[in-house]
Amino acid sequence: MAPMKAGDAFAAMRGRRVAILGGLGFIGSTLALGLAESGAGVLIIDNEAAGSGANPANLRGCERKLELVRGDIRDTAMLSRRLSGCEVIFNLAAESSHLGSMDRPLLDLNVNAGGSLAVLEACRKVAPDAVIVFASTRQVYGRPSYLPVDENHPVRPVDVNGVSKHAAEQFHQLFYSVYGQRTIVLRLTNVFGPRMRIADARQTFLGEWLRRSFLDERFEVWGGRQLRDLTFVEDVAEALALAAQTEKAQGSVLNVGGCEPISLIAIAEHLVQLGKRGGYSVKPFPANRARIDIGDYYSDDATFRRLTGWAPRTSLPEGLQRTLDYFQRHFVDYTGVSAA
Amino acid sequence: MAPMKAGDAFAAMRGRRVAILGGLGFIGSTLALGLAESGAGVLIIDNEAAGSGANPANLRGCERKLELVRGDIRDTAMLSRRLSGCEVIFNLAAESSHLGSMDRPLLDLNVNAGGSLAVLEACRKVAPDAVIVFASTRQVYGRPSYLPVDENHPVRPVDVNGVSKHAAEQFHQLFYSVYGQRTIVLRLTNVFGPRMRIADARQTFLGEWLRRSFLDERFEVWGGRQLRDLTFVEDVAEALALAAQTEKAQGSVLNVGGCEPISLIAIAEHLVQLGKRGGYSVKPFPANRARIDIGDYYSDDATFRRLTGWAPRTSLPEGLQRTLDYFQRHFVDYTGVSAA
Repeated sequence: MAPMKAGDAFAAMRGRRVAILGGLGFIGSTLALGLAESGAGVLIIDNEAAGSGANPANLRGCERKLELVRGDIRDTAMLSRRLSGCEVIFNLAAESSHLGSMDRPLLDLNVNAGGSLAVLEACRKVAPDAVIVFASTRQVYGRPSYLPVDENHPVRPVDVNGVSKHAAEQFHQLFYSVYGQRTIVLRLTNVFGPRMRIADARQTFLGEWLRRSFLDERFEVWGGRQLRDLTFVEDVAEALALAAQTEKAQGSVLNVGGCEPISLIAIAEHLVQLGKRGGYSVKPFPANRARIDIGDYYSDDATFRRLTGWAPRTSLPEGLQRTLDYFQRHFVDYTGVSAA
Repeated sequence: MAPMKAGDAFAAMRGRRVAILGGLGFIGSTLALGLAESGAGVLIIDNEAAGSGANPANLRGCERKLELVRGDIRDTAMLSRRLSGCEVIFNLAAESSHLGSMDRPLLDLNVNAGGSLAVLEACRKVAPDAVIVFASTRQVYGRPSYLPVDENHPVRPVDVNGVSKHAAEQFHQLFYSVYGQRTIVLRLTNVFGPRMRIADARQTFLGEWLRRSFLDERFEVWGGRQLRDLTFVEDVAEALALAAQTEKAQGSVLNVGGCEPISLIAIAEHLVQLGKRGGYSVKPFPANRARIDIGDYYSDDATFRRLTGWAPRTSLPEGLQRTLDYFQRHFVDYTGVSAA
């Protein structure tokens, strides 16, 4: 399959009615903007949960191009009303913090597994022909037995978030096989870019690093040698849009990887080289993190690439530069304070 | 390991404080009676949910030997109050109907995954040294790829119940590895015996067959050639008690099988030979059952037997005879009507 041109994935959805659950968040808003600008009819449903990536600043200036509803994916009556008529539903509404899932496990289960099940039930009733794309996470694999991790790797979650997300994945596969609902599950790896939550470390370590960098504070690198494959958010948005258009992906659970694997220390070095003055310190893992840490991780996403033609377009240095440029302009909207 | 003598497993728990969640139900009450008669201090917590196996008749005449609290395992405040001081907790509180889980998926998830997580959270706080034995189900495997099914078989649930129970299993393993809570998960196969729910087919097909047999009505055998391994309930109660005493089983998920595999038609023939007059008809599967049917199933439980010395004591014909004898005396307590 020939590589897509930028924007093709969004343009193909022009005129289609699309719902984005969690569309005020980091990935959801990036997808919403791409689709709305390409002429899709975008409905965002978001409960603006405290601690989530939801931020009105994510859509600033583009509010008129889409419809925004405040609602919770656990509210089945609301879902049945709103999802009727939708052709594609992207479910990006989630509790995403690993550590948070250990502090509030029942909330994590209710939102990630219960909310996803409620979405599936609503679609079965009011949108049985809709395609549902569910954003899952590499976290379901736990500590890798081998690298790169493909979809045959055992599922052994090391935190409540991984268990909840895996249950949600299984519900999607079940609704595909039992009811013929056209579901696709993507297991994302670490995603970064403009609009990410930088108020704390709830959306990857990088959020925390970025905030401190802008404040000219040192940030802490825990461990440091661990390998990760980061994906730039616009590449992820494109992967989601492509998945929705790929009939052969329906019923599947597929990895979506990213840039070449890189150590945390190397990422920190990139940040420093891009002009951030605070620098960093390498520290051992705090105890509550160590017990849910997974060591090295990077994805084998050959199946997804083959089925969709997708490949990431944005290198890590380029993505970091664009992320820094964005937060240079909008830092206060994400932190409540001005950059140093 | 030398085979245990009958009653040894219960006697070893004399004087210990034991909670049985779902202890008014079929398996729970059988375990409760065995432990209470052997001198364990038994606390039963049961919400007497409609459609569950909970039945006050299950404990009739023995109420003074144990403590019974009406409560729901989703009630975390109640759990924290009640589980404090318990040394062993058997979690048999569940939504167990496969078809019911498709009709009310969110209830199934809330009780089976959410309730189990609430129990684990309560134990972590008020009973961190307690052993927790969780009754899971062969249903997590879905349609077998090979027989007998061992614990390495892929988990591919074919209904919501299987997904919910699997999430609960993973929470138990997680609390073992992260917090050191001493959890053991047993995947039970079809269990039968006195005190089972026979008002309908929610606790295996056999409940339905038994009720119709006592009413001298024909019962329906769907398919008929499928193989199953049934376990007599007293053998299961002993397996649960043994698991609680087997340190090497902690952190594990283990199959507990039963009698030699036998076809549904052969089971029906046994029933007829034991003097039931209604007889049976062989029918194709109804559509809503066919889509969640799993074909043949029987367990490889060699690991559990090796670790605990357990083996089933009761043959299928003997178990069926004892079941018939029980319901001959107590039919009205389980159906609201008298036997024919």
